[in-house]
Amino acid sequence: MIKPGSRIGILGGGQLGRMLALAGARLGLNIVIYDSDLDSPAGQVSREQICAETSNEDALAQFAKSVDLVTYEFENVPQETARLAGKYAPVRPGPLALEVSQDRLIEKSFIGEQGIATVDFHQVDSVQDLAAGIDALGIPSILKTRRFGYDGKGQVVIRSAEQLDDALEQIGHQPAILEAFAPFKRELSIIAARSTTGECAAFPLGENRHEGGILRETLAPANVDKATQARATEIAQTMLEALDYVGVIAIEFFELENGALLVNEFAPRVHNSGHWTQDGCRVDQFELHMRAICGWPLGDTRALAPVRMVNLIGSDTGNWQDWLKTPGALLHLYGKTEARDGRKMGHANIVGTPET
Amino acid sequence: MIKPGSRIGILGGGQLGRMLALAGARLGLNIVIYDSDLDSPAGQVSREQICAETSNEDALAQFAKSVDLVTYEFENVPQETARLAGKYAPVRPGPLALEVSQDRLIEKSFIGEQGIATVDFHQVDSVQDLAAGIDALGIPSILKTRRFGYDGKGQVVIRSAEQLDDALEQIGHQPAILEAFAPFKRELSIIAARSTTGECAAFPLGENRHEGGILRETLAPANVDKATQARATEIAQTMLEALDYVGVIAIEFFELENGALLVNEFAPRVHNSGHWTQDGCRVDQFELHMRAICGWPLGDTRALAPVRMVNLIGSDTGNWQDWLKTPGALLHLYGKTEARDGRKMGHANIVGTPET
Repeated sequence: MIKPGSRIGILGGGQLGRMLALAGARLGLNIVIYDSDLDSPAGQVSREQICAETSNEDALAQFAKSVDLVTYEFENVPQETARLAGKYAPVRPGPLALEVSQDRLIEKSFIGEQGIATVDFHQVDSVQDLAAGIDALGIPSILKTRRFGYDGKGQVVIRSAEQLDDALEQIGHQPAILEAFAPFKRELSIIAARSTTGECAAFPLGENRHEGGILRETLAPANVDKATQARATEIAQTMLEALDYVGVIAIEFFELENGALLVNEFAPRVHNSGHWTQDGCRVDQFELHMRAICGWPLGDTRALAPVRMVNLIGSDTGNWQDWLKTPGALLHLYGKTEARDGRKMGHANIVGTPET
Repeated sequence: MIKPGSRIGILGGGQLGRMLALAGARLGLNIVIYDSDLDSPAGQVSREQICAETSNEDALAQFAKSVDLVTYEFENVPQETARLAGKYAPVRPGPLALEVSQDRLIEKSFIGEQGIATVDFHQVDSVQDLAAGIDALGIPSILKTRRFGYDGKGQVVIRSAEQLDDALEQIGHQPAILEAFAPFKRELSIIAARSTTGECAAFPLGENRHEGGILRETLAPANVDKATQARATEIAQTMLEALDYVGVIAIEFFELENGALLVNEFAPRVHNSGHWTQDGCRVDQFELHMRAICGWPLGDTRALAPVRMVNLIGSDTGNWQDWLKTPGALLHLYGKTEARDGRKMGHANIVGTPET
């Protein structure tokens, strides 16, 4: 039993780690961040930070020995890292979630095996595979590296059979997957969690709007009927159980014109599309993750009010004063000093009235 | 203009400093705590802590030089300390608020000078003064030290004229004030703020219930009519302006049977009776204080839902799991390891539905 006062280790010190740390502090947990950046957003607000590379096995062992529990804020934690940390402390979510989520081919196969609909896909290790994939899935379709893709990176849309060699060149001839193009109406996502006790909980769906491959806005609760919400919650629960999962998971859906939901991908962590819960719900996704990994009751995940979450990217934070003046808006900044293009610097949650 | 990324110094590292630090972190501020306890609740979650006694002038100067702004979480900051820090950085709230709030005689005189009703009082420096006070104010009445009283300490109820010497002995013959007994129905308090720009804001009133001189529960918004809320808000604004105040202030009222409000006292800081705002409002008292001292727009202080705030004192935190299971309850723990009798260890906010 993890009690208040326990030491929770977080691999990664970005904004997700920061907001996990703030939620943990509220619950009386002592947060220890592992990150190579001495000035990491999460380290700034945590009890301790161990400043080392993930590949530093001595530092990692020392970190894991010093805490009661290890969790992480990014899905590309090397499995070797998770295994090493796991020698000294429980790592939650566990290794299966990392293994499955790190590889798009394994991920989509796993989702399909649970009887959950996803886009059609084809394994691509050569130009012959790609050509066969195009034959099967048609054009347009999307070539994606199996590993390390995020925010639209590592992806090429295939619009013509002439383009195959170029496309493989563009993704550096890495092991890949071709995905059928899903004519989706919109992207929805659900944030859900499972505790060590098996208790599951989920927030209402959010609707996501992207620009240039980066999440721009989430509207939540999404305007969906009860059946769609129920289906998404059920899919989340199936995934959580199939992965023997502990912690918060984020699942992205394509909603088709006919209302069907296809799972696009999942992230074994708190997620940008769940930031709205900070000001729209009683327990937010960060506290929910802490409760889940500690084996505590998950609490109330209902929405109290509608929220529009707007990401502040790069120079967007220049208008921080406007956000402070906007009725109903709450500003969340990540403590990053350099506002590089495309860098997530903060977000604003614009909370509506409970009646609307 | 204080911008996100600025360094905010907080004198005092207790739970109020901790919750100020967490609110500051959310806004991208870098918090520096000044406290002699190496393991202070606020230091645990802050960017930096300077570990020194308030009397250490060198450390204090170094602290004040290193930050953009100094604030505090307790009203007994020595005026010499505030003056020294003020040489190097703005101190908010300013010296007048400290001077007035630290001495019950000055405080009640000041409140009266603003045309605001308070209990009748009489200055007591000798047994003759006390006898004259009893003649004027009647029995029962309450003898209080002018300085350093909190949580019911430094107070004696005078019930008989035989008791005068004993009563003075009990308060160590310190300079004192005799206060008339107010036959109040209940205690109400208001949390309000004023920004450097002069903008004022106030939360709805809370109703406070004490046990053994310590706040046990706050119910908010208090069940009062609009006129009472309006009067309390107006009194708060008068006080804020008279004190040329910057930051959050807490004002305690006695509500009499006829509905009249008497000001009992004020604290120049965030206050236990305002903790309900963390889960009942959009902007809470901690964020409100940060916005005010930084000169930022104050934001929305309306209540979204009714809250019952319950203090967890001493061994009360033993039932933390029950609070996590309680529908609508949010748990806030302060990172204190030793649960001494009477020590505030945390609190729970039990949030109702917006409709109730």
